[in-house]
Amino acid sequence: MNWKDIKNRKLAEQRSLLEPYLVSEDKISPIADQNDIGDLIDKSSFITPNQKKITNLEITELLSHYQNATLSVKEVVTAFCFRATLAHQLVNCLTEVRFSEALQEAEQLDEYFRTNGKLRGPLHGIVVSLKDNINVAGLASSMGFIGTSIEKKNEDAAMATAIKRLGGIIIAKTNTSPGMMYSETTNMLWGRTLNPWSRKLLNVGGSSGGEGAIAALKGSNFGIGSDIGGSVRHPAGLNLVYGLKPSSGRFPKHGTVSGQAGQESIVSVYGVISNSLANVEYVTKTIIGSSPYYDLDPSCIPLEYRKFEVDQNAKLNIGILTSDGTTTSTSPVIRGLGIVKHKLLEKGHNIIDWKDTYFTEIKDTIYPFYGANGYAGIKKLIEQSGEPLDPHLKYVEDGKDMAVSELWELHKKRTELAKKYLDFWNGKEDCERLDAIISSVTPFPGCLIDKIVPQPVNAIWNALDYSSITVPVTRCDVSKDKPIDKKNYYISEVDKFVHETYARETEKFHGGPVSVQVICNKLEEEKCLAIARYLNDLLHENDQK
Amino acid sequence: MNWKDIKNRKLAEQRSLLEPYLVSEDKISPIADQNDIGDLIDKSSFITPNQKKITNLEITELLSHYQNATLSVKEVVTAFCFRATLAHQLVNCLTEVRFSEALQEAEQLDEYFRTNGKLRGPLHGIVVSLKDNINVAGLASSMGFIGTSIEKKNEDAAMATAIKRLGGIIIAKTNTSPGMMYSETTNMLWGRTLNPWSRKLLNVGGSSGGEGAIAALKGSNFGIGSDIGGSVRHPAGLNLVYGLKPSSGRFPKHGTVSGQAGQESIVSVYGVISNSLANVEYVTKTIIGSSPYYDLDPSCIPLEYRKFEVDQNAKLNIGILTSDGTTTSTSPVIRGLGIVKHKLLEKGHNIIDWKDTYFTEIKDTIYPFYGANGYAGIKKLIEQSGEPLDPHLKYVEDGKDMAVSELWELHKKRTELAKKYLDFWNGKEDCERLDAIISSVTPFPGCLIDKIVPQPVNAIWNALDYSSITVPVTRCDVSKDKPIDKKNYYISEVDKFVHETYARETEKFHGGPVSVQVICNKLEEEKCLAIARYLNDLLHENDQK
Repeated sequence: MNWKDIKNRKLAEQRSLLEPYLVSEDKISPIADQNDIGDLIDKSSFITPNQKKITNLEITELLSHYQNATLSVKEVVTAFCFRATLAHQLVNCLTEVRFSEALQEAEQLDEYFRTNGKLRGPLHGIVVSLKDNINVAGLASSMGFIGTSIEKKNEDAAMATAIKRLGGIIIAKTNTSPGMMYSETTNMLWGRTLNPWSRKLLNVGGSSGGEGAIAALKGSNFGIGSDIGGSVRHPAGLNLVYGLKPSSGRFPKHGTVSGQAGQESIVSVYGVISNSLANVEYVTKTIIGSSPYYDLDPSCIPLEYRKFEVDQNAKLNIGILTSDGTTTSTSPVIRGLGIVKHKLLEKGHNIIDWKDTYFTEIKDTIYPFYGANGYAGIKKLIEQSGEPLDPHLKYVEDGKDMAVSELWELHKKRTELAKKYLDFWNGKEDCERLDAIISSVTPFPGCLIDKIVPQPVNAIWNALDYSSITVPVTRCDVSKDKPIDKKNYYISEVDKFVHETYARETEKFHGGPVSVQVICNKLEEEKCLAIARYLNDLLHENDQK
Repeated sequence: MNWKDIKNRKLAEQRSLLEPYLVSEDKISPIADQNDIGDLIDKSSFITPNQKKITNLEITELLSHYQNATLSVKEVVTAFCFRATLAHQLVNCLTEVRFSEALQEAEQLDEYFRTNGKLRGPLHGIVVSLKDNINVAGLASSMGFIGTSIEKKNEDAAMATAIKRLGGIIIAKTNTSPGMMYSETTNMLWGRTLNPWSRKLLNVGGSSGGEGAIAALKGSNFGIGSDIGGSVRHPAGLNLVYGLKPSSGRFPKHGTVSGQAGQESIVSVYGVISNSLANVEYVTKTIIGSSPYYDLDPSCIPLEYRKFEVDQNAKLNIGILTSDGTTTSTSPVIRGLGIVKHKLLEKGHNIIDWKDTYFTEIKDTIYPFYGANGYAGIKKLIEQSGEPLDPHLKYVEDGKDMAVSELWELHKKRTELAKKYLDFWNGKEDCERLDAIISSVTPFPGCLIDKIVPQPVNAIWNALDYSSITVPVTRCDVSKDKPIDKKNYYISEVDKFVHETYARETEKFHGGPVSVQVICNKLEEEKCLAIARYLNDLLHENDQK
């Protein structure tokens, strides 16, 4: 079969699995030209009021319903199947679909509860989507390549096992850039995933773009994405949801696939994405609490979840970072960071304007890691089916296989830089030890389609293996967010591109997402989540009045 | 200056620093031909009875003396300076010497105690030796190369800082193979370190051979060595002392030097060596308890020390391993493992004769990591001074710089094997989860000088990042340990060499050390130490009667 046939068969298969849940085309077509559909589902009548109610519940609320037998798992999974399908019709976020298996599992859980009078585990009946590169038995892990879309995996990845044995129900997998190789989500197999908040103008982010979109549209309770240079945080930020990139060793990753497997100089990690910060926190605690190091993944470490709360009387030391040394933030992002800073200052916290700490050195040291094998793995994946080269992947053609001696020299530099960062963290910038750094996720409020810029602001924290989570702050308002007059002073060519683009195409960014990321030190996920929650509460304190 | 002049100057410098503590040559010469001098110091009158008493105290006993002001730190450090010097005269174990700095620090600690009425920290006045590759301000880190013997380091390594701030006193550094590149301890600069238990016939082990020897001769309370393929355990085993190889992330390693820096496919770790298991346990707990992750080394993880005791009623599941797939044990080693097995069976524990679990696959996967850069770093170190190539390092001439694409393929294999080992650990061999594996350290009872054999039995646990500690069991007794008649069935050429050598040269091994290693899973140092202590108590239960 040639690649076109495989693709068509694959898409047809997907369509038939979604069929029972699809909203008819004539209902969807009136909104085909609508740019921002982020809130559409809850405001329209595509799904029933009860389905809306169910899919808006937080995990702990769902668990209470199950415990009180006021909802069945089957009812909930059904509601999410409808909502996920609708999300897919709106933004093309799904890849593999396992609704019927999920419903069977739902029935088993309901039966279990009826028989035993208790829930199966802390994720009993919680509805999960997974990024396409996480193996699930019976499904392919195409990563957006046509050649890998046929073979169905025999075994669950450690993450899928962890979720299933806690009672979670995986309903589908979601779209990614091919091989997770760039921060946008489009490929030759599944096509482009759209950003719900700006389907026509802004891209959905990547590489976990499918997870970002489905989280924004509440098509699952939570999703799992992977992050090696921002791939959880970038789409989470661009979809105005919460995405945690943990340090390595806390979440299982065994049994996942990658375009560049074997790359260990910057460790790929898996993290939680959800429209609810409480969900992210609950899932993180639950998965870590299930001790994946014990039997699922030898790369996990036996570090139990340590409860952390921000002391209401404490003065936090927070560094705010407006540039990553390659780009400076555009005005809406600066405004977003300003809102955060203002809220924290009001509470008496100590804010440090964070200086350039070897940003260029660390970027130049770590960027070569990603393609150090000359993209041999990716090239193989592309060649497998004879599919045309994704234009975004043009750069792999120039990939050169590095010598190990050179790689080791870069390792040495990275190790020295990691120590320098730790020194900074411990107060070389006129403050006590930092509690967190807050930075942007992108220099833009969202990113224009097919206009990817390098984002050291994300990759730096991968290189250092720090913990980080995105928090949505605001949306671009062109009446407030005038382009900055840079007076031709740019810190790099990319910076010039960023500011010229924003100045020239300001209108396109109207409504664009502005998120920040809260960064804590290595293996400080609990603290990172607690500070994010504290900040999130501050940002929403007026909502509650 | 040519390399000979540098070497001579360096040796003269060392001699002048040792001068005040040296025993005169005419006293030493009568024992020049004595092979086993392991117990000599305590049985002779080279040092005073009081110095003997002091240097035989365990760490906690020393701390009690300090607390009760029944010993001063200066008195203790002085005793150790004499004993370490004598050890050096007997087996040539020291490299850099800092006795006068140590005595100054001792005076400061005594002053601190007089003023404050309390100890400085949990290592107050505890006497430490460090493997030569751990930087100490004011000393060189030659690693046995002449070219690196001149430059004095400006900063302490994280490990040295950790020890100093806990109150520990570093008196000297100890010998290693050049660049820690093989498991014997001899180099062009410092010459050969001898094995105290068999100075003329058996080698001291390596690469932390200086630490192994000084521990056996009680020249310090504890030492720190490094281990990337057995370099702590091999010399600890061969010197009949205790050597812990922790998993990565528990002990600081920043600021150390290496012949192959930047190699991260198998992570080098630092561990404790001492003639007292209680000392190893105390130091491990203390260093981990000082939270090196916080400010000293970003590669450390915030995993606190977790108290572990072997429940006297529990049935442990212990795997016993008599072969590593490359060699089978000679008869004295089999007898040693048999003693251990018998003791454990007597207590009702569950013993599993451990099968070959992918030993060959894992060896073939990990061995290429060590020289994947074509030994570029080592070659540079040798070239620096123009010193002749150490004949043991002949193999580096054939080193080939590997392509990163190949390295990544090996990483993938190692990751899969690590998962298979975890599965084994969790009971695929007809038992509950294993508590520990017990294996040999070498196939021989000691190793003949210049007859190094590959030791996957050590490197496997590095590849898997498991925790492991050596426990001395017995010594070769040729009247009991007859060569095994292998009937020409050897599992490899190395195995043939091992058994033919033992059969041909049995007498040379008489009195040779037989140690085992207790291996626990990743980051189970506390459990590993507890099981080692339990086993050690069993082995010595008759001593106490």
